[in-house]
Amino acid sequence: MHSFQELSEKINTHFNTRHFPETPATLYEPAEYILQIGGKRIRPAICLMGNELFDEIGADAYHMATAIELFHNFSLIHDDIMDKAPLRRGMETVHTKYGESTALLAGDVMLVRAYDYISKIKPDHLPKVLQLFNKVGREVCEGQQLDMDFEQKETVSLDEYVHMITLKTSVLLAASLQFGAILGGAAGDSQHHLYEFGKNLGIAFQVQDDYLDAFGDPEKFGKQVGGDIIANKKTFLMIYALETASAEQRKELKRLMQENPADKVTKVLQIFKDCKVDAWANELKEKYLQTALQHLEDTAVQSVRKKPLTELAAYLIQREK
Amino acid sequence: MHSFQELSEKINTHFNTRHFPETPATLYEPAEYILQIGGKRIRPAICLMGNELFDEIGADAYHMATAIELFHNFSLIHDDIMDKAPLRRGMETVHTKYGESTALLAGDVMLVRAYDYISKIKPDHLPKVLQLFNKVGREVCEGQQLDMDFEQKETVSLDEYVHMITLKTSVLLAASLQFGAILGGAAGDSQHHLYEFGKNLGIAFQVQDDYLDAFGDPEKFGKQVGGDIIANKKTFLMIYALETASAEQRKELKRLMQENPADKVTKVLQIFKDCKVDAWANELKEKYLQTALQHLEDTAVQSVRKKPLTELAAYLIQREK
Repeated sequence: MHSFQELSEKINTHFNTRHFPETPATLYEPAEYILQIGGKRIRPAICLMGNELFDEIGADAYHMATAIELFHNFSLIHDDIMDKAPLRRGMETVHTKYGESTALLAGDVMLVRAYDYISKIKPDHLPKVLQLFNKVGREVCEGQQLDMDFEQKETVSLDEYVHMITLKTSVLLAASLQFGAILGGAAGDSQHHLYEFGKNLGIAFQVQDDYLDAFGDPEKFGKQVGGDIIANKKTFLMIYALETASAEQRKELKRLMQENPADKVTKVLQIFKDCKVDAWANELKEKYLQTALQHLEDTAVQSVRKKPLTELAAYLIQREK
Repeated sequence: MHSFQELSEKINTHFNTRHFPETPATLYEPAEYILQIGGKRIRPAICLMGNELFDEIGADAYHMATAIELFHNFSLIHDDIMDKAPLRRGMETVHTKYGESTALLAGDVMLVRAYDYISKIKPDHLPKVLQLFNKVGREVCEGQQLDMDFEQKETVSLDEYVHMITLKTSVLLAASLQFGAILGGAAGDSQHHLYEFGKNLGIAFQVQDDYLDAFGDPEKFGKQVGGDIIANKKTFLMIYALETASAEQRKELKRLMQENPADKVTKVLQIFKDCKVDAWANELKEKYLQTALQHLEDTAVQSVRKKPLTELAAYLIQREK
């Protein structure tokens, strides 16, 4: 069995080679550029982990892992265009560096290339894998659209937000494990539990991400603390605060969001604390983490083989104890 | 055997139903919108024609035809964003009506949906079909990128232009026939000849399109005559004119393109006529058409079965006799 770190390194080596032809360089240089920026390669690594739960890691699992990482990068390129984001992982985004039209097209060809890796998978698993990949692709697009819709909406409920964030970020994580499991010959029941493990772990991670944006240690977090507050983002924290605040606090929150005063972050954080948003968020994260771990527990595989996945959960989710 | 018109009608009926879920409507209404604008459904119809050359039209051919039309519409949505086109078939383009971000995402989900129809194809043909579809997808992206690159280039050779236009418009037409043939059980040799028939027919059609833009009857053409000249597009005609013009004519052409005077179209057309661009374009079209028809001739199928494809060629390409 390999640890997450070991598999992540294997995948990194794998992404040190070109994935596109040389010409036209105007199209393929931007595509290679985002792949070289790196990232933690979480999704392809957990695809390999899902595979190794049931079998030795095979060539098909590598094809699948590559397709997943290409899909993820396709969605990053296009999301960055939509969000008008200037930077990604501290580097210029593709559209900033190469222009929007080329970024759009580089994203398109990245998605097609993902399907190219899928087409290499042995025919007995191909239809099932292709259908799941398409389902995830559709859901990720839906999640991004809902996220954009929410920016225009006055009120977003917690359920609506969980639904959106599940589609936008968790289903790919969940499916990555399931893809590995399918290719390892797992039964449908195990596939289901692994999918649910990944999905709930992804939601727990997102709760943590929203929490750290507000309450994280600026030195450890690596992003601007309060960035979501400045951008008026509807996060787990803001949605809960708006739901539980007193009439007066709610009025103050809305005023802060409309007027964007210089002390906005401090004042919003104070209301978050008064509403005990921090404790609530930690409990919510813990709830999703426990649900995830229960599904891992229920997966019909020897406990010892699950150790890398338990370690992954611990690596991704910091405990407050 | 069915005629092109009959199959085109069948496909039209098929596209009168929804191809996407109801929600989120903000994503799927724009996707359904472009499908309802219509179009001639040439590509899916010739996929069915390629299939009927070898067998009765089966369910897989319909899945494939649907995937092809969805792919075509995905590329139209994204091309229109890149070209900042306000209208398509006399209607607002998707990004004009719904905004660029939603159009980008509607294109993405349309491409994923195309692969969804492919995933329904029986496993024995699936790998081959998926690989060809990915190849075409990559080539269409390359063609669009080259087209954008050419706008920035001082000189484009005829060979470069033929290469670009082949990727951008002809390979999908060519592959549509091949997909039908594959699903009909055609031998590799027949697949090759049908692909080449479609490819050369597509190039002939493009030569004609460029010709009609300059020399077409405004009432029949349906588009603004001289539109390519006004937009300084590098067409078959302009590239040939620049290659064969005298030094003086070439200087005048470049001046007209730079200065955009009111009588630009008239003056460019006069140089085209002086260089005999019109006769050359008709010969070139005829050359590609004859190559196409020779490949159809060489396809190992009874002549009587090829009649719909011969009629299609005659329908698409107007003869000057």
